[in-house]
Amino acid sequence: MKRSLGVCYYPEHWDEAVWAEDARRMAEVGIAWVRIGEFAWSRLEPAPDRFDWGWLDRAIDVLGAAGLKVVLGTPTATPPAWVVEKHPDMLPVGKGGQPRRFGSRRHYDFAHRGYREECRRIVRHLAERYGKNPHVAAWQTDNEYACHDTTLSYSDAARTAFREWLAQRYQSPEAMNRAHGNVFWSMEVSDWSQVDLPNLTVTEPNPSLSLAFRRFASEMVVEFNRLQVEEIRKQSDAPILHNYMGRVTDFDHFAVGADLDAASWDSYPIGFLSDRIENDPERKARFLRQGDPDNQAFHHDLYRAVGRGRWWIMEQQPGPVNWAPWNPAPLPGMVRLWTWEAFAHGAEVVSYFRWRQAPFAQEQMHAGLLRPDSQPAPGFHEAATVAKELEGMEAIDPAPAPVALVFDYESAWAWEVQPQGRDFGFWRLAFAAYRALRRAGLSVDILPPDAEDLSPYKLVLAPGLLRLSDPFRTALASYEGIALLGPRTDTKTADLTIPVPLGPDLPGLDATVTLAESLPPGTEVPLENGGRFLHWFEHLEGAAPVALRTTDGRPAIVGDGSICYLAGWPDDATFDGIVRGLCAEVGLPTLDLPDGLRLRDTARHRFVFNYAPEPQRWSSVTIPPAGVHWEPR
Amino acid sequence: MKRSLGVCYYPEHWDEAVWAEDARRMAEVGIAWVRIGEFAWSRLEPAPDRFDWGWLDRAIDVLGAAGLKVVLGTPTATPPAWVVEKHPDMLPVGKGGQPRRFGSRRHYDFAHRGYREECRRIVRHLAERYGKNPHVAAWQTDNEYACHDTTLSYSDAARTAFREWLAQRYQSPEAMNRAHGNVFWSMEVSDWSQVDLPNLTVTEPNPSLSLAFRRFASEMVVEFNRLQVEEIRKQSDAPILHNYMGRVTDFDHFAVGADLDAASWDSYPIGFLSDRIENDPERKARFLRQGDPDNQAFHHDLYRAVGRGRWWIMEQQPGPVNWAPWNPAPLPGMVRLWTWEAFAHGAEVVSYFRWRQAPFAQEQMHAGLLRPDSQPAPGFHEAATVAKELEGMEAIDPAPAPVALVFDYESAWAWEVQPQGRDFGFWRLAFAAYRALRRAGLSVDILPPDAEDLSPYKLVLAPGLLRLSDPFRTALASYEGIALLGPRTDTKTADLTIPVPLGPDLPGLDATVTLAESLPPGTEVPLENGGRFLHWFEHLEGAAPVALRTTDGRPAIVGDGSICYLAGWPDDATFDGIVRGLCAEVGLPTLDLPDGLRLRDTARHRFVFNYAPEPQRWSSVTIPPAGVHWEPR
Amino acid sequence: MKRSLGVCYYPEHWDEAVWAEDARRMAEVGIAWVRIGEFAWSRLEPAPDRFDWGWLDRAIDVLGAAGLKVVLGTPTATPPAWVVEKHPDMLPVGKGGQPRRFGSRRHYDFAHRGYREECRRIVRHLAERYGKNPHVAAWQTDNEYACHDTTLSYSDAARTAFREWLAQRYQSPEAMNRAHGNVFWSMEVSDWSQVDLPNLTVTEPNPSLSLAFRRFASEMVVEFNRLQVEEIRKQSDAPILHNYMGRVTDFDHFAVGADLDAASWDSYPIGFLSDRIENDPERKARFLRQGDPDNQAFHHDLYRAVGRGRWWIMEQQPGPVNWAPWNPAPLPGMVRLWTWEAFAHGAEVVSYFRWRQAPFAQEQMHAGLLRPDSQPAPGFHEAATVAKELEGMEAIDPAPAPVALVFDYESAWAWEVQPQGRDFGFWRLAFAAYRALRRAGLSVDILPPDAEDLSPYKLVLAPGLLRLSDPFRTALASYEGIALLGPRTDTKTADLTIPVPLGPDLPGLDATVTLAESLPPGTEVPLENGGRFLHWFEHLEGAAPVALRTTDGRPAIVGDGSICYLAGWPDDATFDGIVRGLCAEVGLPTLDLPDGLRLRDTARHRFVFNYAPEPQRWSSVTIPPAGVHWEPR
Ligand SMILES: [Zn+2]
Ligand SMILES: [Zn+2]
Ligand SMILES: [Zn+2]
Repeated sequence: MKRSLGVCYYPEHWDEAVWAEDARRMAEVGIAWVRIGEFAWSRLEPAPDRFDWGWLDRAIDVLGAAGLKVVLGTPTATPPAWVVEKHPDMLPVGKGGQPRRFGSRRHYDFAHRGYREECRRIVRHLAERYGKNPHVAAWQTDNEYACHDTTLSYSDAARTAFREWLAQRYQSPEAMNRAHGNVFWSMEVSDWSQVDLPNLTVTEPNPSLSLAFRRFASEMVVEFNRLQVEEIRKQSDAPILHNYMGRVTDFDHFAVGADLDAASWDSYPIGFLSDRIENDPERKARFLRQGDPDNQAFHHDLYRAVGRGRWWIMEQQPGPVNWAPWNPAPLPGMVRLWTWEAFAHGAEVVSYFRWRQAPFAQEQMHAGLLRPDSQPAPGFHEAATVAKELEGMEAIDPAPAPVALVFDYESAWAWEVQPQGRDFGFWRLAFAAYRALRRAGLSVDILPPDAEDLSPYKLVLAPGLLRLSDPFRTALASYEGIALLGPRTDTKTADLTIPVPLGPDLPGLDATVTLAESLPPGTEVPLENGGRFLHWFEHLEGAAPVALRTTDGRPAIVGDGSICYLAGWPDDATFDGIVRGLCAEVGLPTLDLPDGLRLRDTARHRFVFNYAPEPQRWSSVTIPPAGVHWEPR
Repeated sequence: MKRSLGVCYYPEHWDEAVWAEDARRMAEVGIAWVRIGEFAWSRLEPAPDRFDWGWLDRAIDVLGAAGLKVVLGTPTATPPAWVVEKHPDMLPVGKGGQPRRFGSRRHYDFAHRGYREECRRIVRHLAERYGKNPHVAAWQTDNEYACHDTTLSYSDAARTAFREWLAQRYQSPEAMNRAHGNVFWSMEVSDWSQVDLPNLTVTEPNPSLSLAFRRFASEMVVEFNRLQVEEIRKQSDAPILHNYMGRVTDFDHFAVGADLDAASWDSYPIGFLSDRIENDPERKARFLRQGDPDNQAFHHDLYRAVGRGRWWIMEQQPGPVNWAPWNPAPLPGMVRLWTWEAFAHGAEVVSYFRWRQAPFAQEQMHAGLLRPDSQPAPGFHEAATVAKELEGMEAIDPAPAPVALVFDYESAWAWEVQPQGRDFGFWRLAFAAYRALRRAGLSVDILPPDAEDLSPYKLVLAPGLLRLSDPFRTALASYEGIALLGPRTDTKTADLTIPVPLGPDLPGLDATVTLAESLPPGTEVPLENGGRFLHWFEHLEGAAPVALRTTDGRPAIVGDGSICYLAGWPDDATFDGIVRGLCAEVGLPTLDLPDGLRLRDTARHRFVFNYAPEPQRWSSVTIPPAGVHWEPR
Repeated sequence: MKRSLGVCYYPEHWDEAVWAEDARRMAEVGIAWVRIGEFAWSRLEPAPDRFDWGWLDRAIDVLGAAGLKVVLGTPTATPPAWVVEKHPDMLPVGKGGQPRRFGSRRHYDFAHRGYREECRRIVRHLAERYGKNPHVAAWQTDNEYACHDTTLSYSDAARTAFREWLAQRYQSPEAMNRAHGNVFWSMEVSDWSQVDLPNLTVTEPNPSLSLAFRRFASEMVVEFNRLQVEEIRKQSDAPILHNYMGRVTDFDHFAVGADLDAASWDSYPIGFLSDRIENDPERKARFLRQGDPDNQAFHHDLYRAVGRGRWWIMEQQPGPVNWAPWNPAPLPGMVRLWTWEAFAHGAEVVSYFRWRQAPFAQEQMHAGLLRPDSQPAPGFHEAATVAKELEGMEAIDPAPAPVALVFDYESAWAWEVQPQGRDFGFWRLAFAAYRALRRAGLSVDILPPDAEDLSPYKLVLAPGLLRLSDPFRTALASYEGIALLGPRTDTKTADLTIPVPLGPDLPGLDATVTLAESLPPGTEVPLENGGRFLHWFEHLEGAAPVALRTTDGRPAIVGDGSICYLAGWPDDATFDGIVRGLCAEVGLPTLDLPDGLRLRDTARHRFVFNYAPEPQRWSSVTIPPAGVHWEPR
């Protein structure tokens, strides 16, 4: 497949006189796609039912005339002031009980019925008007669901909807009492009206209720997205996407994605390194201007799964952003590197955010491809380079990866509700496994928790899953590679209680977690092979053969056939050893990559990316900092 | 006295079919006592005035039939949903003004009249039904008063009650204005309605008002407990206890204890090391699986004082807990060590929390003696070992300790209200003194602030007392050992103002604190003898002879006869030197114990406990990690 | 001019019987001024319109009779309970929406109309009664505006007033939408009622609105102060001052100062070192008992500018305070040093806070010149020493400084609203420049942002100015010394948007900031000369000659004639090199002072102050710690 470039554009921010010139320059630089409209509600409907389509008609015409394809966004992330006046109780409420106000964006509660109807209405109008427009070649629903911590809201609307949701799920208060063990601390309820949202309790609320609330909140997002998709599909055949935000686990992306045609995500490597990736300060300093060398790839692989193979970068960082704690500029070359890395992982389109830096409002310090004065910013030239390189490049087609990692949103919620140790988190654990695979030079597929076919993979890692889905359990039972599960995998019921008999219940592996320990920073469980567990360690019992022990003789890894269980959280070096050992067992060659060098294999190429701030050797090639190298496979 | 074991049990959590087997196993393992009922309100009274006693009747019968003695808890820490529906204003309110909701436990305001009547009612019913039951051999009121920061509530109920309390104490607004110095900043009030709770002020409220609020809040707990005791005593002759929580100073335990027959506390050594003991991270890592080597002993000695000689461990950690920031498992042997240490300090009963790990709700990750699948957890075997050892052991009787430490809740409140340096705290200061005594191998008695007989002790430490009570001052005046007071002792009035003439007013010691300094971490006041003060230093004036000076010549310790005053907060090594010097003066031998080894002398034995993670030598014996050694005295 | 001493006194705190003796001792020790009355509202007007002037009449008489001049404070920082009962909505509201209550001080919203009228009334009464009193020789309005974070309030009163203010400033919602770029995120409003205060939004509000709110809040303070000044001026010719608090930038001190006759500030060197100066812990430990060696001088120079040459210390720390995180005592001699340093910088009066330590209420642990028992505290003797020294000293007259630093409150607000990097702040940046000047031995004048005459100065530093005022730009255009601007200077519009063409727009310097980077701790931009930028770095473009480059060749300083632009935030050593280099260019000699030694030149003297904890050499003199040396110039 030929890959292409895009850009995010806000015609409503600029004098109409410059649109044509902007469009011409976009086309000239090699951009094929333009995303527009996703925050423009106040210009599309300045007052209730008073629509102003003219400017958007003309903008789409101008862009289309320049040969650009339009991604049209629904503007529901930014309801105008009059919508909030009409539905004052649509505002989300924070965990501490404080209302969150109009004046920025995402000021709505997903569960609010009235706001959902407003959204259905504006989306229907938009779809009716542009559903057959020849230039509108794709749609985006809303913008970055969950961003700014907006999935969980503690409003009256949420309370009402949650009670209804519980009533549907459990059918009776008594059934919920039993499922949640509400006899504990006399938390039993006799009427749904006695159930409150799981905030502001004296101490921790029942974790089963908290997990139920997480499921409910995720479903609200799914429903909210689905009603928009329904309205668009009635009018348009163009593919519908949503732009997910990096390291967001507050709702189930697979479930939202099931209603979409492709996934996309917003990739801000330097912002994310600064504000949401666990790294020690020295490592953050080393990758200051490049971003974490595995974080982009991880999301690429994740959204390839969410999009069932089809995915984009909807927003690609083109220079410094404004929202991270600190905001340095990318190392020259990194915008190109990030773009090529996305293509190597299968992105259909990489779309830069944004065309021209806005000189006003919240994101005025966020770079664009152009400066506010319309001069090219550094990212402009790198985008142009990629566009040229793409022209000369043969098609980049995906190759199946030899190893897989299972990722599950429900598990992220469960362990957030019940971390048991302050630094335990599902994302972090899954990412630790992913990084170890990447350091060994492996290309990785990410799988949803209900994956039913593992046969393409020689090795599957599934740490920290709340429970095994039926299809995945079935797949494991007949799996011929090696699956490494644990720690914490399949040790709970769906309601976040402890099963009796104790878990995990793994096909063909007699191993039971009898006790779990969390470990503060500065402490560890040393292993016989010189490695160590940090953060987490489980005591195992059962007949499964012990492959590795702690220095005091407890099982650290058990299993020999195809299913193994890992009883703790290995540090990086230990994880490297484990991954390389398992790869050797299944005959999968691994590499020992220099720090910052990363690989990705496609059908015909091996891509090599240098995230390090110094040149690195790759066989006979020296790759400069921010350098991209590709060679035939 | 023969010491015995107990366990906490929740018949309402389990199928009635397993009760008998549970009871049989308890008895078999050597358990004598079972605490039940303290969270079961929703099962005892599922709806207003609809009682269901049947299951509790049967549970007590089954336990009693197995030879177990029952401690019956009142269920007032967990009012059911219907109680809260009836009294919505009974909910406590946090310092920031936010209500704290139903959905966990302790969701009540001690000052709420309506809730007090509900409590009186349920306790009366309980006492009427079980007051003469032959198996109910003790009572527990409520559960862990103050836990989850519930002593201080800023509700309307609290506001009303506080105004009444102030009116009683001060008789007129004018008198309070005078006592508190409300002329400062025009804070004078002319009507009680103008007094608000001391939260949400623009800057710090008047410390005199804050201390008054702390006294009020403590008295609310005392009243709340007393009404339960009254109801039980009408029906039962069995002893009444409450289970205090570790390192809680929010109410006066001596005052609550005065209404009880014995004290008890809930000992979670590893949880407490993690979440409430000041130690540097290296020290926390060293004692990760053992707990702080002095913290348990400190509480044992404190609750022996609160119980006027009679005390229990009502809840003993048997494995990992769920509520600390991190939750590792005890080192093998520690459950036994903790149990023996409690007996050596005089515990009548050590009761493990809990029999079987709950597979549901908030504490599902908290170990029990049994796993959720009813298999023995590690603590089970250690409890069984202790039970066997107890059988073969002669009676353990208390011996008077040669040194005493005075502990005072009011002082804890005063210095919390007015720390003057961010890391000054009464508990921490008293514990620093206690630790120095323990490192010297001494057994310690803790005394209440109104102790009137010091004659059993050769040395008394009383750092940080807000003021000297009359009986204690009288006792000091004729004391023949050495009393070391200060820093900060007796430097304020009862209303937390500065007395003129300045304090302290110590019998026979001419010393005045003219100025106090607090010192940030990384700074110190060096002493002539090579020692140093941290945190706190006072400038002294007066004719008292100077026993030790700072390097710039200021008094550091004054006094020579029996009363000495310490002008600062010594670091550990300095405190060691001071304690050893004073012991030498009074002819009390001290030891130089290896780090982690601790002693306790009883009438006939010397017990030696090894908290260190490595073996330690004790004269000719090597004690393994978690080892307990005893020898005749 | 002869300089004199003063003291803060609270007759209402003491028995009337001691007033005369207090006054006698004040006079005896050499004190000339007494500030009184500023918290006494509840004693002046115990109930609405019931006044009690008698005690204040007598207090002024007693003080005047002893030869003391009175500074009379208006009591508006502490409205009594009955005022709040009358205007319950006058209470300020915190950013999180919580009301802030009666019970300490400063519990009012500057924008509240009703409270303003109460203030006008009490001030009018006070001025009517004492405006012609021969002993009342100066006035103070209110007390420490902004202290305890009280400038910004999110009350209903503030909301109403802010909407009116916006309507005045922008004339129409549409004009504000345009000025703020509210098209971004559909934030456009069609009615002023749709504008809310910039708190509690889902994510950051529009920075233009936030800056408008900061301007509004500052103007509320100016108006509040002005109405008091108006009332006093009607009745009195005595000079009117306000006592500003250290490191407060929440309102424009120049604007408030324009209505006053002189400035004054409250100098707490040790408290400020502890709670509001950025220093690493080792440096804080080194200056623990002395205060930061530049912070007092900085404020002296700042308030000399605010007072247009006339300024006082209204409150001088005389010993430990009570309100900092830790509160050590000053090194012996520091009270004298601080006093002399203030005189050397031009203070007319240095007034100690307070005469006698209060034994009650919030500040009972705050030292006075006397102890609570009326004995002299350490500061007493140092004040007496200064008084003696002043007698024998010739007049201390100001000398023009050779270098100037521009300070601007609006810039502080702008960068607080939009720091772009977590540790970027205007005060900190300006202070970094100031410190570099002081380390070079230079005396400094601070200039307001609308300074129109730079001719007295050989060197002007103006880092971080939001924009250049017209007068300052004009002055720069004809300036013959060297002006060093940047980083971040003149890169925004007045509405905090980005100008097109891009800034800065500096006379005669072709340089444009095309991109800005913020840098986390532990990262840097290294410079060719071995120096480095921390925190901040800008990419420059333009024809201006490059004076210094980064190691990778980007401009670090540009300009050669009189206007230079600094593209980053130099670390201390780098800033030293830059300052010394520029001084050499303009023929200004610099010194290399030992750490802790600081100079100040007056018309006839050079003063040398030793803030170091060890003796320092100054030419042939050894100056002890806390020592003050002066010599003829
Ligand atoms: Zn975005
Ligand atoms: Zn408990
Ligand atoms: Zn003050």
